[in-house]
Amino acid sequence: MNINRREAIKISAAAGASLLLPSTISCQQAEGKKLGVALVGLGIYSTRQLGPALQHTEHCELVAIVTGTPSKAETWQKQYNIPASHCYTYETFDQLKDNPDVDIIYIVLPNFLHAEYTIRAAKAGKHVICEKPMAMSVAEGQSMVDACQAAGVKFQVGYRLYYEPFHLEAHRLGREKVYGKVNLIESSLGFSMANPESWRLNKEKGGGGALVDLGLYAMQGARMVLGEMPTHVTAQGYNVHPEVFKGIYESVTWQMQFPSGATSNHSTSYSTYVDRMYASAEKGWFELRPAFNAVGAAGQTSDGPLHFATPPFQQIAQMDDFALAIKEDKATLAAGTEGLKDLRIIEAVFRAIESGKVEEVG
Amino acid sequence: MNINRREAIKISAAAGASLLLPSTISCQQAEGKKLGVALVGLGIYSTRQLGPALQHTEHCELVAIVTGTPSKAETWQKQYNIPASHCYTYETFDQLKDNPDVDIIYIVLPNFLHAEYTIRAAKAGKHVICEKPMAMSVAEGQSMVDACQAAGVKFQVGYRLYYEPFHLEAHRLGREKVYGKVNLIESSLGFSMANPESWRLNKEKGGGGALVDLGLYAMQGARMVLGEMPTHVTAQGYNVHPEVFKGIYESVTWQMQFPSGATSNHSTSYSTYVDRMYASAEKGWFELRPAFNAVGAAGQTSDGPLHFATPPFQQIAQMDDFALAIKEDKATLAAGTEGLKDLRIIEAVFRAIESGKVEEVG
Repeated sequence: MNINRREAIKISAAAGASLLLPSTISCQQAEGKKLGVALVGLGIYSTRQLGPALQHTEHCELVAIVTGTPSKAETWQKQYNIPASHCYTYETFDQLKDNPDVDIIYIVLPNFLHAEYTIRAAKAGKHVICEKPMAMSVAEGQSMVDACQAAGVKFQVGYRLYYEPFHLEAHRLGREKVYGKVNLIESSLGFSMANPESWRLNKEKGGGGALVDLGLYAMQGARMVLGEMPTHVTAQGYNVHPEVFKGIYESVTWQMQFPSGATSNHSTSYSTYVDRMYASAEKGWFELRPAFNAVGAAGQTSDGPLHFATPPFQQIAQMDDFALAIKEDKATLAAGTEGLKDLRIIEAVFRAIESGKVEEVG
Repeated sequence: MNINRREAIKISAAAGASLLLPSTISCQQAEGKKLGVALVGLGIYSTRQLGPALQHTEHCELVAIVTGTPSKAETWQKQYNIPASHCYTYETFDQLKDNPDVDIIYIVLPNFLHAEYTIRAAKAGKHVICEKPMAMSVAEGQSMVDACQAAGVKFQVGYRLYYEPFHLEAHRLGREKVYGKVNLIESSLGFSMANPESWRLNKEKGGGGALVDLGLYAMQGARMVLGEMPTHVTAQGYNVHPEVFKGIYESVTWQMQFPSGATSNHSTSYSTYVDRMYASAEKGWFELRPAFNAVGAAGQTSDGPLHFATPPFQQIAQMDDFALAIKEDKATLAAGTEGLKDLRIIEAVFRAIESGKVEEVG
């Protein structure tokens, strides 16, 4: 039990052997050990956020990668001391099931692949984290939740902001009505994403552009502050650069109505910068600005600035929460069912853009 | 020409006589003299803003009042040394035409009275300032512009923010494309106005609640930063406290589309606080926060804070601009035609709330 898994892996790798840690000290059984994470897809988010974040996690660690690009595999092996035996391709993905070092498979693929790989990971008997947006549709998302339940594995959606200190405070201020009942939320996220080659701009691969990618955070923020789901939405889609944004809305504005009587108003865009959440309540207001980016938030209230230490990576707490949920067999804050909530809203927003009418959230 | 008008008035008042200044030194003829302003309606705005502001103006001064409340007349007479001869009621309003001290009549009445009193003031041969919203409809507003033109008098709408330093800078940053083309504007204004006795909450007297009263500033800000009129709008109306807000929308959110491709998104409310304008441009952003209140704005850009001295009252520059426009026979920045622009947008917004569709700005 004193063997450090990383050191064991190093030895294993140095020996050129495919020696695996004995199953008797597999992490799920050894509460004190870190759970092993396999990152699937080594794009910018894995490279800049998840890989580095996993160097800070207390309850899990990076043990394996899945990539279709040999040069990436080489780079990551060196950078994170991952043995060749723990480097997979999409062809060998299903062999993850035979690797007892891997407890968690983290799907960081383009959106249209989320469902397929989440379900395959669940079938491999591994716990799954899937990046947001969780799926291309509510139906697809539900199939992912169902698959994980059927396989008896836990499922988290990669909602890093569920664990960010300024957001947690905003959620508390709203739900505990510290400034009284929240009446209005304005929250928006946009930045320039004008690369027509990106899968994010492809409707079949990205699922709908800025709304599902960035707007999701703005809508999530509103429902988390209010602690309730919207019942009705209205929405407007814009495309002023159709030569770049083909078949998707470049920008979307939408409004949500909540059972408490609160309303919210939002902007999202792939062509301009905005990053803020403001909540107006009976006796004051609170605001995060910047709010939703992965680098860090800042905040203020009608009483003055908020002060919280910004963690090196928001995903540290996210992944550790999931690892602890597994170790202690409890729920993760960002369960897959949370992802379904935003998919339900997103579908209503797209319906509202098309209909021009008030649409119920299904 | 050395006689100070106020002192002359004091003497006149002290003598209990209705002695008027000789017409040979009326202000319009004597360029160096201050033009005389008659305030019509001594509510909160006159009391807290216009009366005090007129103590700082360089080119005009308070010389007369019109009120239906004798106690107000008494208070104002004492506070501002206004002789009884220069205190009018709504019954004697039309006698203003015979008072050569009065060059400008400033209509500060409930919205439904703007047209009637503006037109009567024009017919009295006086220049007119009318508070915002200029009128209850575009047609009514046009009749006011026409009446002033027919009478050969100048007409200003009380757009104090056309003269506020942070707003002037925001207009410059947008129009000169200092941060490149502006893509998105978010601007909102709301505060609690839950007094069901107020004419502002009465559709027949206020004309439509928060949108025409507060939202007007948010829409004005967007078109002034962009230097163009929106062509299309969408809008949503809310009423979660129908027992307070009868027949008007308590809150409105609306969106505007501009010829340049810019879009804007706005919230206004009579039940919660919000006060901000944000412009996202190609190479940066700028923001006023607070933006629209009468006390003072603050601002920042992607390069850092904006620094401008806040005038004691925004209306000083507004009224002095109008007085100079009269003296020098030039256009005022906030001409009545500017008020018509916002009335056109407001009508389109109300149509859009009802139709749920994209509406053209007429």
